Amino acid sequence: MVLSHLNRRGEASMVDVTEKEVSERIARAESLVCMSADAFEQLRAGQNKKGDVLATARIAGIQAAKKTADLIPLCHPLALTKVQVDFELEPEDNRVRIASFCKLAGRTGVEMEALTAASIAALTIYDMCKAVDPAITIAHTRLREKIGGKRGHWVPGD
Amino acid sequence: MVLSHLNRRGEASMVDVTEKEVSERIARAESLVCMSADAFEQLRAGQNKKGDVLATARIAGIQAAKKTADLIPLCHPLALTKVQVDFELEPEDNRVRIASFCKLAGRTGVEMEALTAASIAALTIYDMCKAVDPAITIAHTRLREKIGGKRGHWVPGD
Amino acid sequence: MVLSHLNRRGEASMVDVTEKEVSERIARAESLVCMSADAFEQLRAGQNKKGDVLATARIAGIQAAKKTADLIPLCHPLALTKVQVDFELEPEDNRVRIASFCKLAGRTGVEMEALTAASIAALTIYDMCKAVDPAITIAHTRLREKIGGKRGHWVPGD
Amino acid sequence: MVLSHLNRRGEASMVDVTEKEVSERIARAESLVCMSADAFEQLRAGQNKKGDVLATARIAGIQAAKKTADLIPLCHPLALTKVQVDFELEPEDNRVRIASFCKLAGRTGVEMEALTAASIAALTIYDMCKAVDPAITIAHTRLREKIGGKRGHWVPGD
Amino acid sequence: MVLSHLNRRGEASMVDVTEKEVSERIARAESLVCMSADAFEQLRAGQNKKGDVLATARIAGIQAAKKTADLIPLCHPLALTKVQVDFELEPEDNRVRIASFCKLAGRTGVEMEALTAASIAALTIYDMCKAVDPAITIAHTRLREKIGGKRGHWVPGD
Amino acid sequence: MVLSHLNRRGEASMVDVTEKEVSERIARAESLVCMSADAFEQLRAGQNKKGDVLATARIAGIQAAKKTADLIPLCHPLALTKVQVDFELEPEDNRVRIASFCKLAGRTGVEMEALTAASIAALTIYDMCKAVDPAITIAHTRLREKIGGKRGHWVPGD
Repeated sequence: MVLSHLNRRGEASMVDVTEKEVSERIARAESLVCMSADAFEQLRAGQNKKGDVLATARIAGIQAAKKTADLIPLCHPLALTKVQVDFELEPEDNRVRIASFCKLAGRTGVEMEALTAASIAALTIYDMCKAVDPAITIAHTRLREKIGGKRGHWVPGD
Repeated sequence: MVLSHLNRRGEASMVDVTEKEVSERIARAESLVCMSADAFEQLRAGQNKKGDVLATARIAGIQAAKKTADLIPLCHPLALTKVQVDFELEPEDNRVRIASFCKLAGRTGVEMEALTAASIAALTIYDMCKAVDPAITIAHTRLREKIGGKRGHWVPGD
Repeated sequence: MVLSHLNRRGEASMVDVTEKEVSERIARAESLVCMSADAFEQLRAGQNKKGDVLATARIAGIQAAKKTADLIPLCHPLALTKVQVDFELEPEDNRVRIASFCKLAGRTGVEMEALTAASIAALTIYDMCKAVDPAITIAHTRLREKIGGKRGHWVPGD
Repeated sequence: MVLSHLNRRGEASMVDVTEKEVSERIARAESLVCMSADAFEQLRAGQNKKGDVLATARIAGIQAAKKTADLIPLCHPLALTKVQVDFELEPEDNRVRIASFCKLAGRTGVEMEALTAASIAALTIYDMCKAVDPAITIAHTRLREKIGGKRGHWVPGD
Repeated sequence: MVLSHLNRRGEASMVDVTEKEVSERIARAESLVCMSADAFEQLRAGQNKKGDVLATARIAGIQAAKKTADLIPLCHPLALTKVQVDFELEPEDNRVRIASFCKLAGRTGVEMEALTAASIAALTIYDMCKAVDPAITIAHTRLREKIGGKRGHWVPGD
Repeated sequence: MVLSHLNRRGEASMVDVTEKEVSERIARAESLVCMSADAFEQLRAGQNKKGDVLATARIAGIQAAKKTADLIPLCHPLALTKVQVDFELEPEDNRVRIASFCKLAGRTGVEMEALTAASIAALTIYDMCKAVDPAITIAHTRLREKIGGKRGHWVPGD
C-alpha cells in the first residue's frame, strides 16, 4: 500500500475511478465533543426543551457531507443517496458522541463524507457552546465502518 | 454565561454583532492526526521529497477558513486578513500536529475559522493517507489562544 | 402519507434513495412577480431593447437549480441534465410569470430544483426592479407538474 | 426612478456603492407557506414534539441569507451582522408565516438578504412536507420594512 | 521584490493585510476570445438580436469576481463595491475583447477579482460557441490598470 | 452547426443531455503563463526547493474543475472521475505551460472542466508571482484534445 493521492513524482493527483464499478458504498464515522459539566448541562437542558443545538449541528453535518469534494481537494464529487447524523449524550463524561452515516451507489467510497459530516457537526456544537466553555475539545474523529469497494467490509482493527 | 446562539425560546439565532467595535482579533487552534508507523513513514518520506500531502492539507485548511460561515450555520461572514496553517511532525508518536492561525480587524472573534482550518487540514491528511491506514484518528481539535473581544486574551486554563 | 424527512424521533433525516431505480424525472414550477405599473413598464421597455433583466434572472434561476442541494438541507445532490427558465409578461396584471423546467435521469424527483429556479429568478427580478418599486410581491410559487417516480404523473388537483 | 442594475445600454451592471457611507441597515421580509389541513396538522404535531421542520427551515434561511450575493447576480457581498428567521403557525388558514430579519453596518441595504432567507426557509418547509401535499403554495414573499440608506425608513404603502 | 505568498520556508501563506489602511482600490483586466469567422458571425448575429451569449458571459464574469477568494487559494475575501464586465466585438480579427473592472474600499487590491471576472467571462463565451468552433483560444488575459495601495497607479510598462 | 446554448428565440438555455448515452469522456486543455525573467527565476528557484507555487496552483486547478458548473452558467453538474493538472517550465521563454486532464463516465463532455482547471491554475500562478511582475500574461488557453461523444476524437486542426 502506498499513499494513493500522489503520483510518482510526489505531486497531488486525484485517483482515477472511471473504471471502478458502481456499487453500494457505506461509511460510518464518529466524533466526540468533550466539554465542562456546566456546558454539558446547558446543552442537555436545551436539548430537553427544544433541542436546537443538536438540530442545528445535525443540519450542519448533513450539509457538510454534501460539500466534501469542495473541502477536501482530491475527493471526487459524489451524488450521496443518504446522509444521517445522530447524537448520543454521555453525561458521565460530559460529552456528546456524534455518529454519521453516508451511503452511495457509486464508484468510490464515502468515508471522507462521513468524517466531514461528523467534524462539522462537532464544530457546530463547539460554536454554539463556546460562550460557556471555550476549552471544549473535539476528540477521536475516526472511521467506524466501511462497506463496499476493494476492501469489502472494514472496521477498526482490520 | 449561557449558550449564546439560542434565543429565549431555545431557537437557533445568530448573535447580533452590529454594535460591537471593530478591533483586531486573533485565534490559534490545533489538531492532531495520529496514524500507524507505516503511514507516518510514508508521509514523512513524501514530505522530505516533495511535501505534497502537507502542501495540499495547508491549502485545504486555508480555503476552509474562508468557508467557515458557509459551514457553521450561526457564524457571521468575516473578511479574514490572514490565515496560516503549519505542521509539525512528531515521529515519536507517529502523528502530525496542525497549528492554525487566523486574524481579522472585525466585530467578532475568529476561533471558528481557526478550528475549521485545523479540522479540514486534518481531514485532508486522512484522505491522502487512508489507503495505507484507514484507522487514522483526528484527536484534540481545540482552541489554543484567542486575542481580542470581551474576554481579551484567552488561553486554555483561563 | 407522513412527513418524509423526519425519522421516528422527529429528527431531520435525508431520505435514503439508494434503492430507487434510475429513471427520467421531470418537474415544472412557476412563480409570479407582481409589480406596479411603473416598474412593469420599465421592465417591458428594457425587455424590448435588450432584455437584460430577464436574461439575468434566467441565468440566476438556472444557476440556482444547480445549487439546490446546497440550499435545501435534506435535498440530495443531483446531476441535472436540463434546466430551463422562461418568462411571460402579463401586462394586464403588471406581472411576470416565471416557468421553470428541470430534468434528470436519476433516483429522485427534481421538484425542489424547479421550485428553487423559479424562486431565485423571481428574487433577481425583484432585485433589479426594487429601486422603482420596493413593494413588488412574489406570489404563487408552486409546482405545476411532476413526471416520474412513485406518483407517476402529477399535476395540481391530483 | 429608473431600473438601477442596467447601464445606459441596458446591460446588467452592479451598482457602485464605494462612495456610500457605512451605516446601519435593517430589513424585514416575509413569506407564507399555504398547505392542506392534513400537511399543516402533521407539521404542527411535529412542531409540538421536536420542531425539526421549522428548526431545519430556520437554519436553511439563515444560511441562505449569507449566500445571497452568490445567488442574486448583481448583489454585493455583505458581512451581515445579524440574521433571524421566525415562524408563526396560522391554524385558521393552514399556513406558516415566515418572518426574516437582517442587519448590517455597511454600504448597501439588506432587503435581498431578508427576502432570500424567507424564500429558502419556505422552500425547505415545502421540501419536508411535499410527501403529504405536493400542492403547497408559497405566497406573498415581500419586503415588510427597511431602515437605513437613501429612503430612510420604508414600509409597504410608502 | 520576492514572491509574496511563500513564507521563508517556501510554504504557501496568505499575506497579512490587517495593518494595511482601508482605501479605494480599482483594477481593470482584459481577455481576448479568438474564434473562427463562422463562430464570430453567429455570435454577432445573436448579439444583434438578443445578446444572450454576451449577457450570459457578463453575469458569469460578475459572479466569478465575487467567488475569487474561493477559487484562488491565497486571496483574501473582499466585499467588492462594484464589478463591471464589458465586451467589444473586433470583427476584423474575429474576436471578442473582454474588459473587466472591480472596485473596493478595502485593505488589499482587486486585480485577482478583475482577472477572474475576465477569465470566466471568456470561458463562458467558449462554452456557448464551442459547438461551432472547439478551437477557440483565450488569449492575453492580463491586468490593464491598478489604482490604490503601495504601487499607487500601475499600468503595463511601469 | 449553430450555437448550442441558445434556444430559437436566442435565449440562454442548458442543452438537454438526458437522452445522451453514458460513455467515457476525456478532455485535455492547456494554458501558458508568460512572465519576466526575474519572476520566472524566482518561481523556478522556489520550485527547486519546495514547489509551493505550483503545488498551490495544482490544487486550485483541481478544485476549480469540480466547480465548473457553478462558474459557467450553462454547464451541467458532472461527477468527474479524474482531474489532473501538470506544469512544464519553459525557461527559454520564461513561461509555465499548464496541462489539464479531466475524465468522466457521463452524458456530456468535460472540455469546460479541463479549460477551467487550466485557467484557475494560471490565475493562481499570477496571484503568487504578481508582487514581482504584475504584467504577467496568460496566453493561449485552449482545448488540446477531446475524446468521446458525438465528435469522437478531436484535436486542434480537425
